[in-house]
Amino acid sequence: MPLSRRASGLAACLLTLPAFAADPLSPAALAEARALRERALADDTAYELTRSLTTEVGPRLAGSPGDARAVAWAMARLEALGFSNVRAEPVTVPRWVRGEARAEIVAPWPQPLVVAALGGSVGTPAGGIEAQVVPVASLDDLKAQPRERIAGRIVFFTNRMERSRDGSGYGKTVPARSSGAAEAASLGAVAMVMRPAGTSVSRTPHTGGQRYANGIPPIPAFALSNPDADLLEQQLASGQAVRVRVSNTSRWEGEAQSANVIGEIPGRGLADEVVLLGAHLDSWDLGTGALDDATGVGVVTAAAKLIRESQQRPKRTLRVVLYANEEFGLSGAKAYAAAHRDTSDRHVLGIESDLGAFQPYGLLARVAPDKLPLVRTIQSVLEPLGIAYLGSEADGGADVGQMRELGVPVMSLETDAAPYFDVHHTASDTFDKVDPALVRLNVAAFAVIAYLAAEAEGGFGRLPVAAETGK
Amino acid sequence: MPLSRRASGLAACLLTLPAFAADPLSPAALAEARALRERALADDTAYELTRSLTTEVGPRLAGSPGDARAVAWAMARLEALGFSNVRAEPVTVPRWVRGEARAEIVAPWPQPLVVAALGGSVGTPAGGIEAQVVPVASLDDLKAQPRERIAGRIVFFTNRMERSRDGSGYGKTVPARSSGAAEAASLGAVAMVMRPAGTSVSRTPHTGGQRYANGIPPIPAFALSNPDADLLEQQLASGQAVRVRVSNTSRWEGEAQSANVIGEIPGRGLADEVVLLGAHLDSWDLGTGALDDATGVGVVTAAAKLIRESQQRPKRTLRVVLYANEEFGLSGAKAYAAAHRDTSDRHVLGIESDLGAFQPYGLLARVAPDKLPLVRTIQSVLEPLGIAYLGSEADGGADVGQMRELGVPVMSLETDAAPYFDVHHTASDTFDKVDPALVRLNVAAFAVIAYLAAEAEGGFGRLPVAAETGK
Repeated sequence: MPLSRRASGLAACLLTLPAFAADPLSPAALAEARALRERALADDTAYELTRSLTTEVGPRLAGSPGDARAVAWAMARLEALGFSNVRAEPVTVPRWVRGEARAEIVAPWPQPLVVAALGGSVGTPAGGIEAQVVPVASLDDLKAQPRERIAGRIVFFTNRMERSRDGSGYGKTVPARSSGAAEAASLGAVAMVMRPAGTSVSRTPHTGGQRYANGIPPIPAFALSNPDADLLEQQLASGQAVRVRVSNTSRWEGEAQSANVIGEIPGRGLADEVVLLGAHLDSWDLGTGALDDATGVGVVTAAAKLIRESQQRPKRTLRVVLYANEEFGLSGAKAYAAAHRDTSDRHVLGIESDLGAFQPYGLLARVAPDKLPLVRTIQSVLEPLGIAYLGSEADGGADVGQMRELGVPVMSLETDAAPYFDVHHTASDTFDKVDPALVRLNVAAFAVIAYLAAEAEGGFGRLPVAAETGK
Repeated sequence: MPLSRRASGLAACLLTLPAFAADPLSPAALAEARALRERALADDTAYELTRSLTTEVGPRLAGSPGDARAVAWAMARLEALGFSNVRAEPVTVPRWVRGEARAEIVAPWPQPLVVAALGGSVGTPAGGIEAQVVPVASLDDLKAQPRERIAGRIVFFTNRMERSRDGSGYGKTVPARSSGAAEAASLGAVAMVMRPAGTSVSRTPHTGGQRYANGIPPIPAFALSNPDADLLEQQLASGQAVRVRVSNTSRWEGEAQSANVIGEIPGRGLADEVVLLGAHLDSWDLGTGALDDATGVGVVTAAAKLIRESQQRPKRTLRVVLYANEEFGLSGAKAYAAAHRDTSDRHVLGIESDLGAFQPYGLLARVAPDKLPLVRTIQSVLEPLGIAYLGSEADGGADVGQMRELGVPVMSLETDAAPYFDVHHTASDTFDKVDPALVRLNVAAFAVIAYLAAEAEGGFGRLPVAAETGK
């Protein structure tokens, strides 16, 4: 594994450093971080915020009435928790309306199928679309098919997502979701259905964003549940032609206004330097967005609030950014990066919470190489939480990653992704899946990281600016 | 525990019996039963039948087109497997059509709810019904409420089913489903919603039969999923009035014709005596009825088929009965009992499979008291499968229980009910939940029991005839 080899190399290197060299964190700061960690383990602010957002707002797809309610909810909550400079920075978002999706096997053995339209799917004609199903294993498999095998048919992606702690199965199945319909349309398919990019064995299909290609007429795109994909495969296994009818009333309604909701805990002394704590306020519409990403909203907000209540506020400003529309094009993250590009060099570190706040097990950091010893010091305070140092491959997450491309150092707290992808983007992403003890562990980790990042002498350096975004 | 005390008492009693007394099973019969057990553990006929029924028929609610397809499927399968006297005995069943059910919280915080109409529910007026929700813990709690607290409101049953191996939580929550709407209507409620009588944490509501009371106008009845019931409770916990709107297009369409499908393995010598092996062919309409009860159909059919292939066919006839409409009033079981009442005394034993064919762990038997040593002998052949003797409280199951009331001895194979009630009566009752290794264990147990019951000298005696059914 490249990651572990890299970590070992680093450990060897650390051994050669003199113990007294460059100590950017004072014993007092480390003591305060440990005290914060313990306070976080007895604090349910994050769990309560998660309960409140899922109960009082619920589904909040970008541009929907729920999205507007979520912005109002977040403004009120940050104010009530004593944040400073609470504001809603405007973000223009696409407005897609789900409507109703239906599917059924017509032959050889008629049965209903449970489906959900993928985000952005076009609708069908009123009578639906009926065609023979052609299975393909993956996006690469589809690209290898001759046009005559695909044209006029409904393409069925059969890949099954593997369940694992690191969530790596998601990246292998999500390409079919993102661009499977576009590729299928380019070969003349009339619709696309897929086994979900998720591990649920319930009859709750997954949704998620997808994009069409310019210049090719779009075709409707659906995810089945895993049991429905099994049923389709069982019927296909008979060797007979399997015909499916799909119908869908999804539609686009232009654009709508949303907002990044921002609140700060001002620093003492280095107040114009910022530690960025991110999560996203929007959610898909099928569930109540408990794990994706009400827990993240709760974790970053509670971590900053606990630091606000510290005896010693840190030197730098903590900025909580609750992003608009992560799910459907990163509108909020892009708007934030555009609006704050001029001060990107005053963003000392970025970190986000967007994986359901399950068991944390590791820390990744992408910082200037000479700042890795500082990361190891921070990790040493996280060690009692079961959080190991996992190397320097952090991407910072989907939202904060937009700032990483501008040179902002990032960390990623790795948490157990297996239970997350059991309900991710399904109707079952609901509050009952949230474990308060695990949420506390996440808050403790974020509070330690945020506090020490806001205190550390000299910060984390800068990253190379990504070619397409830098200037 | 009364059961274990009873079992211990019996064990003590057995020790006093002389080893050579009354040996109704020959060493050859016991050897053949052990061989059958081993053959069953290597046979996937039951799993294949389950796959076939769920794939090629799927949902088969009594009186629906799927029900008719299931009858044709069963006839063809029993013929193909070499059963004798394969026949469809006519059964009249009620015909209820689900339509579409919807629900949403209107106030204080609008959110959609996922619901399913309970079986037999009436529809709503076209615009639905909107009213304030009043929570009650249970049917008994409802009965204790003053009329003015219930009248004009939507009653919400909040009991949560406990998950356990013996499935005992079901019996505590199902009374609200069976007669909650009738009781609520008698107090003037306008609709009923309930936390499901099931343990799924997915957004897949439970359905199941319910009955109205004569003389009281019926009100629509719905089950929520557990996460939806949580959401409703969270909003109620705010102390504000919670208003819900429900709509439903369920309707009754009179009666339809279905059938009990029957096939036999004729006995040698005592061919007019019958060992009855039951399962039900119908299913609820939301899932594909994999666990309820395609596995049962597979288990009893495969057990009889394995016995047919034995070197030594047993003395008595094995009769597999695949009952019509277990789910919605036991129409098939009642029709069978009516049609075969005259020969009930030639039914030596009845046993059924209707709990999903998970891990078997025990045997219950209700037989003439002097036949309990024979039960212990049979259990000794099941012991290597992990099946203990659990006592004499067998009820025989819902279908076969109709014959028990006529005096027919019964056995019950106890299997792990916890995973069964995770998907019971939901859309997620699908083939992927079936574990082929556990199905084989169930077939082995049924084959042993059926073979030895068909061989045992003198049978199991008779039970007292239930007052309301016997004459």
